[in-house]
Amino acid sequence: MSVLAYLGPAGTFGEEAARSHDLDADLIACPSHASVAAAVESGRAAAGVLAIENSLNGSVAETLDILIHDTRLQIESELVLPVIHNLVVRPGSRGKGINVIYSHPQALGQCRRFLEENYPDAHLEAALSTAEAVATVVTQEGRAGAIATARAAELHGGEVIATSVQDAANNVTRFIVIGHKLPPSSGKDRTSIAFTFPEDQPGSLAAVLTAFADRSINCSKIESRPTKEVFGEYVFLIDFEGHQDDEEPKSAIEVTRQLTAELKVMGSYPRWR
Amino acid sequence: MSVLAYLGPAGTFGEEAARSHDLDADLIACPSHASVAAAVESGRAAAGVLAIENSLNGSVAETLDILIHDTRLQIESELVLPVIHNLVVRPGSRGKGINVIYSHPQALGQCRRFLEENYPDAHLEAALSTAEAVATVVTQEGRAGAIATARAAELHGGEVIATSVQDAANNVTRFIVIGHKLPPSSGKDRTSIAFTFPEDQPGSLAAVLTAFADRSINCSKIESRPTKEVFGEYVFLIDFEGHQDDEEPKSAIEVTRQLTAELKVMGSYPRWR
Repeated sequence: MSVLAYLGPAGTFGEEAARSHDLDADLIACPSHASVAAAVESGRAAAGVLAIENSLNGSVAETLDILIHDTRLQIESELVLPVIHNLVVRPGSRGKGINVIYSHPQALGQCRRFLEENYPDAHLEAALSTAEAVATVVTQEGRAGAIATARAAELHGGEVIATSVQDAANNVTRFIVIGHKLPPSSGKDRTSIAFTFPEDQPGSLAAVLTAFADRSINCSKIESRPTKEVFGEYVFLIDFEGHQDDEEPKSAIEVTRQLTAELKVMGSYPRWR
Repeated sequence: MSVLAYLGPAGTFGEEAARSHDLDADLIACPSHASVAAAVESGRAAAGVLAIENSLNGSVAETLDILIHDTRLQIESELVLPVIHNLVVRPGSRGKGINVIYSHPQALGQCRRFLEENYPDAHLEAALSTAEAVATVVTQEGRAGAIATARAAELHGGEVIATSVQDAANNVTRFIVIGHKLPPSSGKDRTSIAFTFPEDQPGSLAAVLTAFADRSINCSKIESRPTKEVFGEYVFLIDFEGHQDDEEPKSAIEVTRQLTAELKVMGSYPRWR
């Protein structure tokens, strides 16, 4: 039986992604993004699942920074899941006169319109996770609600009184699976690379992107992250279509290597769907 | 007397940035990034101050999204401030036996090493702001600490028992001032633009960057944000050196306009320092 690490606690979207990736796996809930990677590196887990990007909030900085700075693990796989938030209360309280609503700040932000329309006077309280928010409200004497997954409600004995309360219908999260494997070329892959330039030089990034454009390779994403060393210097991340062992991508990577100070190929993996 | 809006509450770095930008201004604390922009648009404030980028955490997504989607206000100015975190307790409690530490999750993250070394057994609790964290600990019977600014300690009657407890020495935040003005070319300016492409086409971004490189214009930052409409489609943001009214930048912007579906020039302003 394989073991999968994910960012806990149980009842968050991370658990849902891990279950969706491998229904039969044993799951380990980890307390931080970094500890998911550490669980895989130490061999406690065969692979780890981390959110990398949300359609409304953009990239998950912690995940990018771990891939850039902290681990040699490869991205083995990706999956995209819809984000469905629910309003959860203590069973029997029926949600009457709710005056405080707990959740992770990002989840509160994603349900802002619903909350303003239905609970304009409720006080919003930050929780470290949506699951912790449910755990909090079920111990309180009514008048408290949580924004959380259906699974968190089930795990902590909360009652869902409204479902799909997120503001945007197109709210999806992309997760990656990190591990030791490099899947072979499937013909429908994505490759993720990260690189820095030797100095702040006009045109370096243009030259890299031109190397991909000249080979008709589609760059599906480009992102920059701080180097954390010098303010205003960046690590660039590019996702492009193709496998690092395919001929054209391989040659574009080689050109990129010539143009950059450091280059890290973070994985090639089948594109979702 | 001019009026400046900032992301409150008082005692956060946003207030420090607003005071630093204009010592004589009347300050209005706003409850969200969006309400800072709204205060300026409605005329309640002449300008607003928002964090846009931190040297460790990268871009502030809310600020980028407001500039992209929600406002026609211009970036008038920028400033860069060091981030200094402190450990704050209820006066007289001396921080003995601290078993819970409150702060904004980002501030807790920036002091992780200090907390692990000095308070390995303390429970970390999320607060909506560093100032709220101080307000919480001063009302509690000892054994609680907050990570916050010196100003938040002063405002809420907390006592600083350790200063500069952030892990990295090079922790700085760049703030922007948004308003109605376009400052004239100073010879040392930065311009910020945002754009989308008509369709997912290999080479479009390479062509834009080449237009800047061909004119020896240094792009100091490139970033992507989700369009929020279709997953996998992005708005690109570029900061480059020069003023939109200078000859070469003006011509690069014109070329970019031809290559893009939508282009927004978000401001030209003197570079910090």
